Amino acid sequence: MLSESPRSPDHAGVLRAAEKIAAILPPTPLLPVEIGGVTCHVKAENLQPVGAFKIRGGWHRLSDLTDEEKARGVVAVSSGNHAQGVAWAARRLGIKATIVMPRDAPQVKLDATRALGTEVVLYQRPGEDRDEVAAKIIEQNGAVLVHAFNDPWVIEGQGSMGIEMTTQLGREPSRIVAPCGGGGMVSGLSLACPSSAIVPVEPVGWDMVGQALLAGEIVRAADDAPATICDALQPLATGHLVLSTLAGRSEPGVAVTDEEVRAAQRFAFSRLQLVVEPGGAAALAAALAGKVPVDSDTVLVISGGNADPAKFAKTIAGN
Amino acid sequence: MLSESPRSPDHAGVLRAAEKIAAILPPTPLLPVEIGGVTCHVKAENLQPVGAFKIRGGWHRLSDLTDEEKARGVVAVSSGNHAQGVAWAARRLGIKATIVMPRDAPQVKLDATRALGTEVVLYQRPGEDRDEVAAKIIEQNGAVLVHAFNDPWVIEGQGSMGIEMTTQLGREPSRIVAPCGGGGMVSGLSLACPSSAIVPVEPVGWDMVGQALLAGEIVRAADDAPATICDALQPLATGHLVLSTLAGRSEPGVAVTDEEVRAAQRFAFSRLQLVVEPGGAAALAAALAGKVPVDSDTVLVISGGNADPAKFAKTIAGN
Repeated sequence: MLSESPRSPDHAGVLRAAEKIAAILPPTPLLPVEIGGVTCHVKAENLQPVGAFKIRGGWHRLSDLTDEEKARGVVAVSSGNHAQGVAWAARRLGIKATIVMPRDAPQVKLDATRALGTEVVLYQRPGEDRDEVAAKIIEQNGAVLVHAFNDPWVIEGQGSMGIEMTTQLGREPSRIVAPCGGGGMVSGLSLACPSSAIVPVEPVGWDMVGQALLAGEIVRAADDAPATICDALQPLATGHLVLSTLAGRSEPGVAVTDEEVRAAQRFAFSRLQLVVEPGGAAALAAALAGKVPVDSDTVLVISGGNADPAKFAKTIAGN
Repeated sequence: MLSESPRSPDHAGVLRAAEKIAAILPPTPLLPVEIGGVTCHVKAENLQPVGAFKIRGGWHRLSDLTDEEKARGVVAVSSGNHAQGVAWAARRLGIKATIVMPRDAPQVKLDATRALGTEVVLYQRPGEDRDEVAAKIIEQNGAVLVHAFNDPWVIEGQGSMGIEMTTQLGREPSRIVAPCGGGGMVSGLSLACPSSAIVPVEPVGWDMVGQALLAGEIVRAADDAPATICDALQPLATGHLVLSTLAGRSEPGVAVTDEEVRAAQRFAFSRLQLVVEPGGAAALAAALAGKVPVDSDTVLVISGGNADPAKFAKTIAGN
């Protein structure tokens, strides 16, 4: 089973990740934004070098590998942003990386991942089990799996964002609203900011973290789950490490529609001058749609900006 | 004559402006960007609350008005970004503002300026003299003119950006490459960073600062100047205060084509996740086109991001 892990992520690990990341990456800006007459904040993680927060977990994980593990190389499974995060870290550390990506991943993400010098192995979504594809590679070459969310280093690495926003705001946020795929980022944020309310936002029909929190156990996506424009937020299920970290710490999840997401992308374009990919706009969409309350200490995470140009053009042109 | 001024801008004024602006606005990010194998920096002024650096000069000028001047109100002439900068400052200070804007200003800029609660007076470009329109308003109601570039406070305010980037970089930039309309920003930057090379970048045919620097005197735009997509960089001429500040301090100006600007907008979209309006991308365009050299201490200013959605959609879709 690919999601097994030797240890639990913790606050100390998040602090260590934050220190390691601060040494190589400037903090992403915390920008004021007015929503319904209240000025709250967005954390613009789309401005990371790879266009998404995933660089955090990738760096924390890969830089902690032993020399023996580094020599074996790494393998990751991703629709594109985790791919780039791992590929960026691998290139910087001189580690061989193989990334398993779905054939229907946005071309921009496929191109950007290959441009970072990694080998990309494609699989069919839905249909092929991506974890099995990865398992086969690991069996063949002994590479170390860097799971996209069910990994203590990855969770701690993503959580480093919470340390940054606390410094920038001058206190822990009252509430952190964040786009949620497998749940690595919200898990990390819950460890980083113990006094903040944590709200995961997922696409309608793909709220596998929200459903798991309600059920108290992992829930798999339905075979007939609806299509979503949020290509980055389509996990087949969350992981045990995410669920155990979040249980009792997270607010109920919120689900957003494609139209709410597009409205948020347009808002980010015209009011924030930011390019945000669909999944990256989920938390902003929830706030704009009035699905989560905001106050002056609320932080909405904009998680990624690797948008397909043609689709983005249609969205901002309003058709 | 609208451009007469009672004093010259200076370094101390820039420092004072930087302190005033730091008290109300977080610094805009200085982001790494790789161009031709060299990692230099962009200063993302499109992330200011009004989507452009003009908020700096507007705030420094309006907040320094006497109570008597504040009661009279202000008038500004602008294609849109200076308009929003002045309108933003006026709203915050409770000052009445009237803005003279060209009929062909982008609708997004007209809408945003009106949304800030100012009165907008339209004029025909080319044809009507916008300074005459403003003069008539001043004659009628005694409002204080806030010139878009030929004003010591405005120049010092824009220069505050140079103090910020010096702090962020840890030293003065080797070279600051900046989009240039009337020349207020490059003048301010030359005062802010006395050891930095300053390179103004203008649209082909609208290089009124570059031409003035060569000629040693103010040069007016030709009546048949070519069309440009850089709506924010079309001054009829630079001003005396700009020319006297820049003379002997600026490198020769650089001119960029519409196609070079569009390529820079696409680059900013896909690589920096930033929405940049045409004029705001001029410096990045010059660097990408190889028209200015870059090193690791070079800063390229991205000056604004108030892009028309339909035009931006066409640009990123590549048609």
